[in-house]
Amino acid sequence: MTETETAKAATDSMPVEDAAGATAIAATGKKDEVKAEEAVPAVKEMRAIVLSSFGGLKSVKILNRPQPTAAEDEVLVRVNCSGLNFLDLMTRLGAIDNLPKAPFTMGCELAGVVEAVGEKVESFVVGQRVCAISDMKAWAELVAVPAKHCYPIPDGVSYQDAAALLVNYTVAHALLFDVANLCEGQIILIHSIGGGVGQALAQLSKMVPDVTVIGTASKAKHEQLKDVCQHLLERESCYVTQVKKIAESGVDLVLDCSCGEDVNKGYALLKPMGRYVLYGTSFFVSGETKNLFSFAKSWWQVDRINPIKLYDDNKSISGFNLRHLLFQQGQHEYVARKVQTVFELFKASKISPVIDSVWAFEDIAEAMQKMHDRRNLGKLLLDPAQAPKPRPAEPEKPVKESKKEKRNKEKKEADKENGDKKDIKDKKDEKTEGDKDKKENGDAKDDTKKDDKATTNGEAEKDGEKKE
Amino acid sequence: MTETETAKAATDSMPVEDAAGATAIAATGKKDEVKAEEAVPAVKEMRAIVLSSFGGLKSVKILNRPQPTAAEDEVLVRVNCSGLNFLDLMTRLGAIDNLPKAPFTMGCELAGVVEAVGEKVESFVVGQRVCAISDMKAWAELVAVPAKHCYPIPDGVSYQDAAALLVNYTVAHALLFDVANLCEGQIILIHSIGGGVGQALAQLSKMVPDVTVIGTASKAKHEQLKDVCQHLLERESCYVTQVKKIAESGVDLVLDCSCGEDVNKGYALLKPMGRYVLYGTSFFVSGETKNLFSFAKSWWQVDRINPIKLYDDNKSISGFNLRHLLFQQGQHEYVARKVQTVFELFKASKISPVIDSVWAFEDIAEAMQKMHDRRNLGKLLLDPAQAPKPRPAEPEKPVKESKKEKRNKEKKEADKENGDKKDIKDKKDEKTEGDKDKKENGDAKDDTKKDDKATTNGEAEKDGEKKE
Repeated sequence: MTETETAKAATDSMPVEDAAGATAIAATGKKDEVKAEEAVPAVKEMRAIVLSSFGGLKSVKILNRPQPTAAEDEVLVRVNCSGLNFLDLMTRLGAIDNLPKAPFTMGCELAGVVEAVGEKVESFVVGQRVCAISDMKAWAELVAVPAKHCYPIPDGVSYQDAAALLVNYTVAHALLFDVANLCEGQIILIHSIGGGVGQALAQLSKMVPDVTVIGTASKAKHEQLKDVCQHLLERESCYVTQVKKIAESGVDLVLDCSCGEDVNKGYALLKPMGRYVLYGTSFFVSGETKNLFSFAKSWWQVDRINPIKLYDDNKSISGFNLRHLLFQQGQHEYVARKVQTVFELFKASKISPVIDSVWAFEDIAEAMQKMHDRRNLGKLLLDPAQAPKPRPAEPEKPVKESKKEKRNKEKKEADKENGDKKDIKDKKDEKTEGDKDKKENGDAKDDTKKDDKATTNGEAEKDGEKKE
Repeated sequence: MTETETAKAATDSMPVEDAAGATAIAATGKKDEVKAEEAVPAVKEMRAIVLSSFGGLKSVKILNRPQPTAAEDEVLVRVNCSGLNFLDLMTRLGAIDNLPKAPFTMGCELAGVVEAVGEKVESFVVGQRVCAISDMKAWAELVAVPAKHCYPIPDGVSYQDAAALLVNYTVAHALLFDVANLCEGQIILIHSIGGGVGQALAQLSKMVPDVTVIGTASKAKHEQLKDVCQHLLERESCYVTQVKKIAESGVDLVLDCSCGEDVNKGYALLKPMGRYVLYGTSFFVSGETKNLFSFAKSWWQVDRINPIKLYDDNKSISGFNLRHLLFQQGQHEYVARKVQTVFELFKASKISPVIDSVWAFEDIAEAMQKMHDRRNLGKLLLDPAQAPKPRPAEPEKPVKESKKEKRNKEKKEADKENGDKKDIKDKKDEKTEGDKDKKENGDAKDDTKKDDKATTNGEAEKDGEKKE
């Protein structure tokens, strides 16, 4: 993109760009500015959320893509809903390893109906309700997934519940019962307890008698989370002192999804026989990305530990990474058993996923921003069939109008037409975009550098409201 | 000791030396060469195995010591038998942290009868059968132990079984079920499976269905250990290749009591979700000892691990150190529950300790050497009431006779009097001493340097047949 194009793009709520073999559709739902004006390809198309290049929200586009077909070991699923995970935000930034080259369809979990099965697939039949964990591709109307990463949805479990349970509760169950071996009477510290996995951890830990849960969450969420655990602390505050007051001799378990300095603090909070567990999204980037530096930083700021120190201290350190487990380490049988257990617990009313909201594809930017700002309480879902939120008619403005001019102009208009709902909506959308710029780009003056800055200044990777 | 004295001491099977407040008795049972010729103190005395200074076997003496009394929170136990642990060998070398200043009475576990209780002790009564884990002092006729480190011996459990179960099975149970969370169907690698904890681990792991145990042990023990586990490998051989053949996708659990390079090898052998557990004796020395360097070496040769690597790999590293847990970290309630569990399992015939042999105090050097050489199969116990093995009359030899001269002379005599049992015994005793020198001191020419060399060249800390 040239600087002019970038500046122009910044004035649109969702820019439009070509991607190989795809027909672009604006996020507002309008087909416009399409450069590729060739005849519609013969293959059937579907809508998908495509990442055009690693970076900010503007890289996320709603595009038409050729419908996939099921390879011999795959299941083709017509998606009813997909889950949004913190992993997707990290994916957008190019901040996890083993990513495909952009452009690609985003998304890691989905629930829907089997539309077709590959010739070697015997475990699923057309029409069956399934959910799946997918290495990208899940934010589309149709997804082809290897059968081994597909799980039947039991009767009585809705698509939305299935999608909300799938990744979050599978991770949480594995963490508590396989990695950490949670036992009666233990005291556990759950960071980011308001997040998807955080809430799942809080619910699942109640299955073990007499467990005390200390959670950290941003102050804004404390009122909503007050029944989730016994002790709610602010991570930004000096929570260490407070944890020590609650658990004088230390905690048995720390569950940390954001890494960084907290590892060193949390290790010290463990009582003898205690266990520190790292999970969440990848902190370390292998391979070349623009954001390598900022993520490598978290790799270096964590103290390396001599195993003999663990022996002296009677402590454990563990890591859990569902994506690696499934897609690099081939543990699909383990994960399939876990998913089944999670569904059984749900049917037995032992757990109940909290769904924050369901979004149309066209509203993905807003949904991602909500997660980025940690304003969600529970799971964010995408529904490809859902109509987008009503949007204003295309604003009449000169293409090269500066952001400041635009903001002033719209503010004026808004002030003038105060009380007009339509315009308030305009303003709100504009504000959201403004916040995004501030948060992701700081005070960057050169738009072309924004994508780089997005990672360095993004709050998420510092503050840790991460979810798997 | 002067060089002359050292040379002289080397010619005796067990040298004699004063220790504060103690009347020395030669290991052969004879009172001689006692420098302190003051009147016998008014306090009652008892026999104890005292470490006069950190170093080789010659630092271990049988001495008379004042009988201890029970402080207000202590239990005074008349010892029926004590356990020998690898920890005691490390203690002798001064190779663990927080040791008292020499001279002190050695030994860490005992079983016996309560002789008296401190005024604040309500949990034990005089005449009760108990066992205890003690921070030194256990190799004596009477031991005063804090009541919190004392455990009742249930009816039907002998003193010897209690002493053989106590440390080894408590450690093994904690390792498998609390630290490692052993689960059905897992594959585990137990290093030094012929050792006390090794055998306990093998037995306890049979309580979990479908667990495959791979053990390492020196070739000499393979025949005796053939029923202990499914796969026996030689640690000295390239066991990594063999483990990979048995467990293609890796093992779930590695239990390592010797640390060092094997940590790095073993970590690589873990399958995803696998766990590496370090236990055993201290590898790291804090504080000033002669042997600091050689033990610091093992601290440095182990790769430090970034916790984020564990997250990427889906692996855990844990440490377990019973001594720290009890005496530095105050987890006596946890340990007491574990001991109780172990006794219940024994009474239910789920476990059965293997006792290698029972030794008189006077034979402690031979017992320690047997453990050092890893010739024991199962537990070595000490019985203060047991009569020492018959020994030859004091050999007639010039005090300053060199070792070589002595060996030649005795070989000649032995050849001459072939068939005479008494002389064969002489030779055997001599050989044991010779082996000790070779193993511990290498080809050290200067006897005064022997104690230093003992650590550096000692095989035990390299080859790993360590036991807790």
